[in-house]
Amino acid sequence: MPAEDARWLAAAAALAERARPLARPNPGVGAVVVKNGVVAGRGWTRPGGRPHAEAAALAMAGEKARGGTLYVTLEPCAHRSERGPACADLATAAGLARVVVGMADPDPRTGGAGITRLREAGIEVAEAGRDAAGLGLAGHEAALTLGRPHVTLKLALSLDGCIAAANGESKWITGEAARNHVHRERARADAILVGGETLRADAPRLDVRLPGLETRAPERWVLTRGAAPEGWRALAAPKDLAAMGNVRYLFVEGGAGAAAAFLHADLVDRLLIYRAPIVIGGGRPGVGDIGLSSLVEAHGRWVREDTRTFGPDTLEIHRRTR
Amino acid sequence: MPAEDARWLAAAAALAERARPLARPNPGVGAVVVKNGVVAGRGWTRPGGRPHAEAAALAMAGEKARGGTLYVTLEPCAHRSERGPACADLATAAGLARVVVGMADPDPRTGGAGITRLREAGIEVAEAGRDAAGLGLAGHEAALTLGRPHVTLKLALSLDGCIAAANGESKWITGEAARNHVHRERARADAILVGGETLRADAPRLDVRLPGLETRAPERWVLTRGAAPEGWRALAAPKDLAAMGNVRYLFVEGGAGAAAAFLHADLVDRLLIYRAPIVIGGGRPGVGDIGLSSLVEAHGRWVREDTRTFGPDTLEIHRRTR
Repeated sequence: MPAEDARWLAAAAALAERARPLARPNPGVGAVVVKNGVVAGRGWTRPGGRPHAEAAALAMAGEKARGGTLYVTLEPCAHRSERGPACADLATAAGLARVVVGMADPDPRTGGAGITRLREAGIEVAEAGRDAAGLGLAGHEAALTLGRPHVTLKLALSLDGCIAAANGESKWITGEAARNHVHRERARADAILVGGETLRADAPRLDVRLPGLETRAPERWVLTRGAAPEGWRALAAPKDLAAMGNVRYLFVEGGAGAAAAFLHADLVDRLLIYRAPIVIGGGRPGVGDIGLSSLVEAHGRWVREDTRTFGPDTLEIHRRTR
Repeated sequence: MPAEDARWLAAAAALAERARPLARPNPGVGAVVVKNGVVAGRGWTRPGGRPHAEAAALAMAGEKARGGTLYVTLEPCAHRSERGPACADLATAAGLARVVVGMADPDPRTGGAGITRLREAGIEVAEAGRDAAGLGLAGHEAALTLGRPHVTLKLALSLDGCIAAANGESKWITGEAARNHVHRERARADAILVGGETLRADAPRLDVRLPGLETRAPERWVLTRGAAPEGWRALAAPKDLAAMGNVRYLFVEGGAGAAAAFLHADLVDRLLIYRAPIVIGGGRPGVGDIGLSSLVEAHGRWVREDTRTFGPDTLEIHRRTR
């Protein structure tokens, strides 16, 4: 893909982040219309799913879209809906010269039909692939191809992998900047889950404490075979993820037992490790037994995607290779 | 410090790395002579300690040193020796206009006298401070101010802080590129130490397996109250570090017990964590009990100095703040 295409598609993927989580269960898409190297329109999926990102970007561009390029993280839809026309038709009507698509839509209602319709209308279409689409479509892809939410596991660890001192003290491992970033991640999730022991021991509020995002409180789930307390819902085991309904992005907060249960079931797609520059030594490990039978088996599963700095702490982001 | 000074002093510090470990017990110093923005001479402490870095750099520069600047990681010596003239006198005789010094020499035989002598000779002297001198002088500083070697603790850990699976399997956590880098670090150390249990279980060779550096095999020490096997020397406890003689850089390889013993005694100056992108879960932790009484105590001790990538693995370098 040409560097300029990659750059504009990354801009569209960044816009798509604004769609989470309010667009659910619709995919959070981002779109940019570019004409002569200048942005003519931009859009992202609005709460509830409409307008679509392309529709918003094309409406903003108006006549400037003619002869321009649309960058969109997901293949434009080809199915008519009572809520609006198909985006492939909007793109054709707008007179676009070119469309650069991130992920082809795994939704069988579109499933390549959007791209076909654009090409039949004489529009040049380039496909960048799912990796260019960003995290905004991971939940959509997981729901349609795996029948479950996209799962992020968050751990806050010392250098030596502990989540608490030997006596259980765990406040705090990481500093304020890292903890604030956790709130930002929560605000992007549809649901948050903790282990039963963590719920009993910490009674975590798991709310979003960021100005302007207080309303983004995700559903609260607890991993337990028993009943959930008021305000919480119970998930008996990681394999029951499909029962979480419209949840597209699940954020697993720990503790060590819940982390191990999801890793053991190989149901973690993204691993966030907030790492503090402290050594605890003989503390409580962040991950319990995951049923590993040999070290060879442990390799090749995770690829480091990014590392960020939050004050003295770092965030290591790993993606499960599948 | 002006950016240009910092840049040339960093070049001198990089040269100083060549002096380790063969210069010992003399400090490994680096020096660059710059005239009109061009390097006229460069040098580093030769095996056994002579010639000094400045002497080598000034000899290489010859007449070009006149009116130039000498960048040197350690204050030039002011004491005459049967092995050569004082470097402060050499600098004066060379007609330098300016000298930029990293660390003032903690050696009482120089202890500021070198800088004083340069200034009395009309040479402008700037002091950058110990942090600009690089790791090449850390052993010298530790020996003279703390009466012990500079200690690096190396750990090869999974994301969750394990050095082995629950069954003890530890080959391999990190990949070949990271393990090669360990050999490079060993080649810079005067001595390597392992715990008694690691010696019995792994019988590690702890040699340097890098082409051209096979002769840099450091002394081999084992942390034990008992006797050392042939080819090894025994250290009863970390607090006995002063008994290691001319050792200026000690490289502690583990295992978890030796790591904990040095951390407990607060005798680790530099922490190298080679981190593989694997999760082990319920494995053997890399660090045993270090006597921490609260999490607050754990904070503020370590500052991340650098992060490097070796294939899939990363190396996190932390420095003990003192």
